[in-house]
Amino acid sequence: MSDEPRPLLVDRTPFPADGIDERLRAQLTFLVEIDRLKTILRQSPLVAATRRENDAEHSWHLAMMVGVLAEYADEPIDVGHTVQLVLLHDLVEIYAGDTPLYDTAAGVDQAEREAVAADELFGLLPKDQAQRLRELWDEFEERRTPEARFAKAMDRLQPLLLNWMARGGTWRTPGVTADDVRARKAVIGDASATLWKAGQRLIDEGERRGWSRSGSGGDGDSGDSAEQG
Amino acid sequence: MSDEPRPLLVDRTPFPADGIDERLRAQLTFLVEIDRLKTILRQSPLVAATRRENDAEHSWHLAMMVGVLAEYADEPIDVGHTVQLVLLHDLVEIYAGDTPLYDTAAGVDQAEREAVAADELFGLLPKDQAQRLRELWDEFEERRTPEARFAKAMDRLQPLLLNWMARGGTWRTPGVTADDVRARKAVIGDASATLWKAGQRLIDEGERRGWSRSGSGGDGDSGDSAEQG
Repeated sequence: MSDEPRPLLVDRTPFPADGIDERLRAQLTFLVEIDRLKTILRQSPLVAATRRENDAEHSWHLAMMVGVLAEYADEPIDVGHTVQLVLLHDLVEIYAGDTPLYDTAAGVDQAEREAVAADELFGLLPKDQAQRLRELWDEFEERRTPEARFAKAMDRLQPLLLNWMARGGTWRTPGVTADDVRARKAVIGDASATLWKAGQRLIDEGERRGWSRSGSGGDGDSGDSAEQG
Repeated sequence: MSDEPRPLLVDRTPFPADGIDERLRAQLTFLVEIDRLKTILRQSPLVAATRRENDAEHSWHLAMMVGVLAEYADEPIDVGHTVQLVLLHDLVEIYAGDTPLYDTAAGVDQAEREAVAADELFGLLPKDQAQRLRELWDEFEERRTPEARFAKAMDRLQPLLLNWMARGGTWRTPGVTADDVRARKAVIGDASATLWKAGQRLIDEGERRGWSRSGSGGDGDSGDSAEQG
């Protein structure tokens, strides 16, 4: 790593030297810096347009899902707290980048890269808020609370919906089978049996239609394009 | 208006006929449909890229601002509730379109168009949730609660920050003066004296640097490009 401080977005047009106190200045600096989340591209294709989704759009979508689907949580969850978790869960990707779900090589040092990124990004905030956001992010990562498990379930269910709508999407990643998809998505079941059942129904039907390679491999289902709708 | 039902995004790849019950099916239909928010472009330029912001990115950014700036609310606010308001405040634009802040002609029938859009979009949800989201949206629009006033303040402060970073942005809209900007942004002061003071500092400094036309008009400040930073 370089010792050079990373240039901040706010450095392009610094705030006036007076009239905004130090605490608010730090908060606004952070809020400008996180504009970068809008430029971090994911693998998932949008439903409504022919381009990939970015992390800010994804995070908003998860927050809406929490509000609408919270009733399916198998353990009671605090909806507002769960929304906080999904809103910030991808912020570290601003400095660490997106690690695609099916890229096992990039996953190796992912945790370390993201922890360094968290220190740097949250460190822009006043100390009390930096600590609070770091705790929320740690909670999401550790999945030890019902809220964190439900947030993670939304993070896996949302691209599943996008892939269904795209008739494959990242399910078509070379080398990935329907069983790989099932393995990566099974954490939905840690939060909600109902949502995992619905998710499995879409994965199964996608496999049947040839939108993913059959789990056992080489049985000829791959490429079957008996699509409906 | 046409009597034809509007095609839904989910119609492109309908869910399997079995295995997902009616209530969950309605909820997933809504959650797929709101993917459209990612395609509604605003006038504001991003900080981190040279393109306009979309409504989903904007809504996510407001939610983060609520979490970080809530301490400046002049009345006590419920942070989770305020976040809910900002997450859904622009959903009606999926069917009603974005009405630019400085487009007074388009603003004339905006309320009516948006109310029709709200009925249609929220109506995709099960009745209890449709009613809850409609009440939240009405609350935001009516600005009668501290949470709604703070949500509205974020909705005005965020593009102010983007315009500052862009050294003008929509402040450069033809015919718009710095006093017009002040008039449109003054609602920030209904929620937070501190944030409105900071906002005014940026508007004043932007005017001084020639990033907006001087409020009194024709006094020669317009076009002054004494930019710093």
